[in-house]
Amino acid sequence: MSADLAKLVTDLARRARAASLVLATAPNAAKNVALARLAELLPASADALLDANARDLAAARENNLTAAQIDRLTLNPKRIAQIAEGVRQVAALPDPVGEELERTVRPNGLEIRRLRVPIGVIGIIYEARPNVTIDCAVLCLKSGNAAILRGGKEIFHTNTALAALVTQALAFAGLPADAVQLIPTTDRAALTTLLKLDTLVHCIIPRGGESLIRFVAENSTIPVIKHFKGVCFVYVDQDADADMAECLVLNAKVQRPGVCNAAEQLLVHAGVADILLPRLARALLASKVELRCDPASAALLAREGLACRAATEADFTAEFLDLIMAVRLVPSLDVAIATINRDSSAHSDAIVTRDAAAAQRFFAGVDSATVFWNASTRFNDGFEFGLGAEIGISTDRLHARGPMGLRELCSYKYVITGTGQVRT
Amino acid sequence: MSADLAKLVTDLARRARAASLVLATAPNAAKNVALARLAELLPASADALLDANARDLAAARENNLTAAQIDRLTLNPKRIAQIAEGVRQVAALPDPVGEELERTVRPNGLEIRRLRVPIGVIGIIYEARPNVTIDCAVLCLKSGNAAILRGGKEIFHTNTALAALVTQALAFAGLPADAVQLIPTTDRAALTTLLKLDTLVHCIIPRGGESLIRFVAENSTIPVIKHFKGVCFVYVDQDADADMAECLVLNAKVQRPGVCNAAEQLLVHAGVADILLPRLARALLASKVELRCDPASAALLAREGLACRAATEADFTAEFLDLIMAVRLVPSLDVAIATINRDSSAHSDAIVTRDAAAAQRFFAGVDSATVFWNASTRFNDGFEFGLGAEIGISTDRLHARGPMGLRELCSYKYVITGTGQVRT
Repeated sequence: MSADLAKLVTDLARRARAASLVLATAPNAAKNVALARLAELLPASADALLDANARDLAAARENNLTAAQIDRLTLNPKRIAQIAEGVRQVAALPDPVGEELERTVRPNGLEIRRLRVPIGVIGIIYEARPNVTIDCAVLCLKSGNAAILRGGKEIFHTNTALAALVTQALAFAGLPADAVQLIPTTDRAALTTLLKLDTLVHCIIPRGGESLIRFVAENSTIPVIKHFKGVCFVYVDQDADADMAECLVLNAKVQRPGVCNAAEQLLVHAGVADILLPRLARALLASKVELRCDPASAALLAREGLACRAATEADFTAEFLDLIMAVRLVPSLDVAIATINRDSSAHSDAIVTRDAAAAQRFFAGVDSATVFWNASTRFNDGFEFGLGAEIGISTDRLHARGPMGLRELCSYKYVITGTGQVRT
Repeated sequence: MSADLAKLVTDLARRARAASLVLATAPNAAKNVALARLAELLPASADALLDANARDLAAARENNLTAAQIDRLTLNPKRIAQIAEGVRQVAALPDPVGEELERTVRPNGLEIRRLRVPIGVIGIIYEARPNVTIDCAVLCLKSGNAAILRGGKEIFHTNTALAALVTQALAFAGLPADAVQLIPTTDRAALTTLLKLDTLVHCIIPRGGESLIRFVAENSTIPVIKHFKGVCFVYVDQDADADMAECLVLNAKVQRPGVCNAAEQLLVHAGVADILLPRLARALLASKVELRCDPASAALLAREGLACRAATEADFTAEFLDLIMAVRLVPSLDVAIATINRDSSAHSDAIVTRDAAAAQRFFAGVDSATVFWNASTRFNDGFEFGLGAEIGISTDRLHARGPMGLRELCSYKYVITGTGQVRT
């Protein structure tokens, strides 16, 4: 890698660090002025944004990207309006910075307060979705963090145009322009340089596929918060209400199958499978879901003349993101819990039961970020939790677990007031 | 590396993961039975411990370790009693697991609770202090985490004997023996294997010198919580009370100079340096502190006939851990804040002033884990904060910042109760 490139990225991070110290004490009003301005600039600058996007789209077609990939890259006036609306929603959220999380007075009179503060400088590494550029910029800004953005090379021109609007909005509000910076090159070496700048950058959030996240985690000396896949389970217990089970399994699987909190795996208690599984299968098949079954569930469905195919071992840990569901029978709640702890991605797992004691055992025993009793896994979401916008759903256990909103983009500091106390 | 070694470490981690799922729901009473038993076993097994320690000490002498290094390795009946007392203190702390951190009911009726849960499996990498083996084992156990311990090779025999007692105590309480495991080899390759087991181990805490921490951070794909050095500042403001300033500077510097929350750096407002600095210098010199001064403070002390030497650039960011203090004059509070943000390790920094507005600016502007107003930096400590025992003082900004006690050894999970809600 050229020394010039390393210097470029390092200088950028240094400016981000300096900006982060200003932003950390910026009043909420100033941050909201910048956000409101950005929400205005986005539709007002639609022509420039669409021109930049057209360059990316032309390159995408030349490089034979798939229709789905091209769709993800595409901006249009409606999408620009949606992005601007997202900015306004973040502006309306309460400022997380400065909140007193704790206050104690020690026997020696020291007053110890723990206050929420920004993390500092956050690097966001993501793929080819232009909305992520603005989403991440505004969540970092609102939470008082400087952001370094590194988007996919396929949307470089679009991102450059979007970042220019953020810079304008920051300047309009009297905030440091360096508070949000896009890495101005698509060179991969810029990313590996960034991931080693652990004295200037405090947190890296990769947003994208598993290979991107693994690359970042393996190459970063900066702490990384990972948002891995969702291999989500619904377990239908012996004492499940049949109507509710059908409703929840169907919703968890088909309401939006391409997202991380959609269910991929169905476990049914063997004691009620004769009655419940055919009903669940009929509902899923009617919604065009392909069932991939273990031998016991396959035999049961065959007896009823219901279509299914034999699951492979890989199906039982798969994130299909599609109208496919793996199905297994389990002999007990304990086996259901053990199966989930072994095979799920610890993202969102649900039990359907009328038995409160079984639900409590499920809550305690299932070691996942979010566990549901009689509710769809699809609710694992920052908006649904009342956190407002989220930067992702963390599958890590440190710092943030589950939906990661403004609060999870913050750290804390201890602030201690004395009257001359010394330690003896 | 041999495949056997990789298998040994991986199998150990798998057993730790299985044990962690049992430990996560273990009642506080069972954990306390194990801790009480361990506290009994330690003095009762003094002969075996001292025999094992003698083997390590013999090797240490053969390898020409320094007297200070050998002292750190050494167990004796008094130290064993202190370690046992520490175990009893941890047992007496409240169980952090299961605490409800938050509860909301959404408009659709979903009840969303956030509960404190153990992290899972924690790897502790440390150097040659036998007390760390027990401290870390009991803090992990009390917080419901399985621990994988990797101590310095210089205390391998001592650690093996200590770990055997922990295993006995776990069995006595009916808890899984694999909940605390020592890596049974001193081969360095075992460590590098461990640091890549990111599907089995959830957190790595290195305890030791900067080079150990850097090695771990650079080689781990598991999230690491770092406890780096303390380059701590005391800033004596224009409006400082002279008596208090003398007391606090002296305490922060000399009360225990070898620890991370001791002050290393003194900043004095230039407007009061003529009056205050000679007094502070006299007090420090009387306590045998060597002063390393910038030109302005050196000139001032020279006029008063007080001893000092010229500081090098490196002195201004140094962690001396000794009776040495770097001294600088600053023209303003703002310069003091900027100097601290540039040169401190963001660990523990203090202002001495009667001016509440200046203190508030210092609190807001200094981006450190713990900031003090009119109190000694030496108070940055889990016991002093009322957290009980601590596993260290985190210099990271994610998950835990500042003193890291039982609570910071935990994660959380969302537990959601519905009545059949589906997402539309």
